[in-house]
Amino acid sequence: MASTTVCSVCGSEAVYADVESKVKYCRKCTLRHIYRKVVRTMKAEKMLAPGDTVLIALSGGKDSVVLVDILGRLTRKMRGLKLLAATIDEGISAGESSYRLEALRFARKVTQEFGVPLHVFSYDSLFGGPLDAYVRLGIPEGSPCSVCGVFRRRALNMAAKALGANKIATGHNRDDEAQTILMNVLRGDLERIVRQSRGAEDLIERIKPLKRISERETAVYAYLRGYEFQTIECPYSHDTTRDTVRSLLADAEHVISGASDALLNFESKLRATSTPSVGFVRCRLCGSPTSSRRTLCKVCEYTSRFQERSALTEPGSAR
Amino acid sequence: MASTTVCSVCGSEAVYADVESKVKYCRKCTLRHIYRKVVRTMKAEKMLAPGDTVLIALSGGKDSVVLVDILGRLTRKMRGLKLLAATIDEGISAGESSYRLEALRFARKVTQEFGVPLHVFSYDSLFGGPLDAYVRLGIPEGSPCSVCGVFRRRALNMAAKALGANKIATGHNRDDEAQTILMNVLRGDLERIVRQSRGAEDLIERIKPLKRISERETAVYAYLRGYEFQTIECPYSHDTTRDTVRSLLADAEHVISGASDALLNFESKLRATSTPSVGFVRCRLCGSPTSSRRTLCKVCEYTSRFQERSALTEPGSAR
Repeated sequence: MASTTVCSVCGSEAVYADVESKVKYCRKCTLRHIYRKVVRTMKAEKMLAPGDTVLIALSGGKDSVVLVDILGRLTRKMRGLKLLAATIDEGISAGESSYRLEALRFARKVTQEFGVPLHVFSYDSLFGGPLDAYVRLGIPEGSPCSVCGVFRRRALNMAAKALGANKIATGHNRDDEAQTILMNVLRGDLERIVRQSRGAEDLIERIKPLKRISERETAVYAYLRGYEFQTIECPYSHDTTRDTVRSLLADAEHVISGASDALLNFESKLRATSTPSVGFVRCRLCGSPTSSRRTLCKVCEYTSRFQERSALTEPGSAR
Repeated sequence: MASTTVCSVCGSEAVYADVESKVKYCRKCTLRHIYRKVVRTMKAEKMLAPGDTVLIALSGGKDSVVLVDILGRLTRKMRGLKLLAATIDEGISAGESSYRLEALRFARKVTQEFGVPLHVFSYDSLFGGPLDAYVRLGIPEGSPCSVCGVFRRRALNMAAKALGANKIATGHNRDDEAQTILMNVLRGDLERIVRQSRGAEDLIERIKPLKRISERETAVYAYLRGYEFQTIECPYSHDTTRDTVRSLLADAEHVISGASDALLNFESKLRATSTPSVGFVRCRLCGSPTSSRRTLCKVCEYTSRFQERSALTEPGSAR
């Protein structure tokens, strides 16, 4: 049937069908549909205000590349919005070269297209050594992802402060968010779900404009715009829990259609009804807000341990 | 190694190992361990008070048989606690005989053992017809489980009132509870999780003494006590959503150990921090509390429709 390949909006040739609504779209209408969905989410959650300077966390993967594109287009229409981008170089070698090298090329390309200044910050300069060196010294004991997550969060806050941004936009999509909520539920961790990113006074507010866009949609958007993006996985990444939860959620969608969206709605309702306990103290070394059970924040804990262990090895050998 | 089959508590021959704690128990210590866990849960959640008359919802399946046993033993020690049991006969034929007939035999046996008076209530006498007749008349349109759930709940309330019980104890185990919580989370239904059973004034308070006992533990307890219990499934039962969620949760336990318990903790924390909206109205026909969007409660909606449709068919043909 010819009609099955026709855009439900304008009648042109369809190139994409929304899995959930079954609506078919041509190239132009797909891009407009996804763009508008992002803008609607930002409006509904009051993510942006005129005068905002937004730092985009740009890894060079498909989600953050799409984020630069959509915020870049929005900025052309929304006066008084200023965009910046930061790529964090973790210092991870992948074979002969750096894991971030390829990503940086894609990051440069999309930011140039929208005239967004791009800044690169490295763990090496911020935390005394690249991630590889931390891992070589056995910090942390478990997965490298735990130190990396803590460092990336801090690096983005430092970047935003240094660049005068009042908000940080990350490319987390709906599937990332739904998986995280489900993981916290399965751990019984209500506090972590309720805790808002804007809790402590000197943390920069975080926004997630793509939080209602599925991973499939960001991939389609990136593909239809012809973007290249990083596809090689981080050599340290093997998050079994997230992988399992991702496949659980995909299975759940078969019997409870819209489960991922429902998880996000669940989180919103939770945050609206529960008040997070604001108990935090200041890190004894850097003054950053940290959990009330700690004296050092996690960043200072890791960097201090790194300095101690580096001193025990020959000079420079940790690098 | 001989030591692997020895009870960790008393050194006798072990017959059971706890999956989560890996602790091994002999027959006597297994029974004591499970019994104490149930009693601890009841104490922690203040489920019982002296002077209580508790109606046990006794289906004749393993969970409710174990519930009579454990509450029966507890009553011997706890003065001023009165037990009653009610079996609800839904009116479901299974081949030649009734689905509840076998179950009733097991229900009679365990209640006699503990001197608990057993009462049988049927949909036929309470709601004008057996479940089979409702199903034949196409009520409800979807799964028979939806009308059956509504009727069973009401039947137990009616039974408790008729018998002067101030609490209803059901045999829901930890796995049932965790699955229900997870289903509600995946549907984004915060309200249903927060809503307490004791919301409306003339609903009898419900307690779930086995809520921290796994399905495996109730099965082991029933087996070690030598109970017979109903094992044939209800011919109408095929809850695909629950089956999927059951297997999701089993998979989740592999990567997030203790996920089922965590879900129950999550629910407890939620109930402690959120206040349910108490908006309900009275059913125009029977006066029972019902959702504020309705004029008839669900029971009266189903029974009225049943009467209408029965009248359209020849007298008695609905039976």
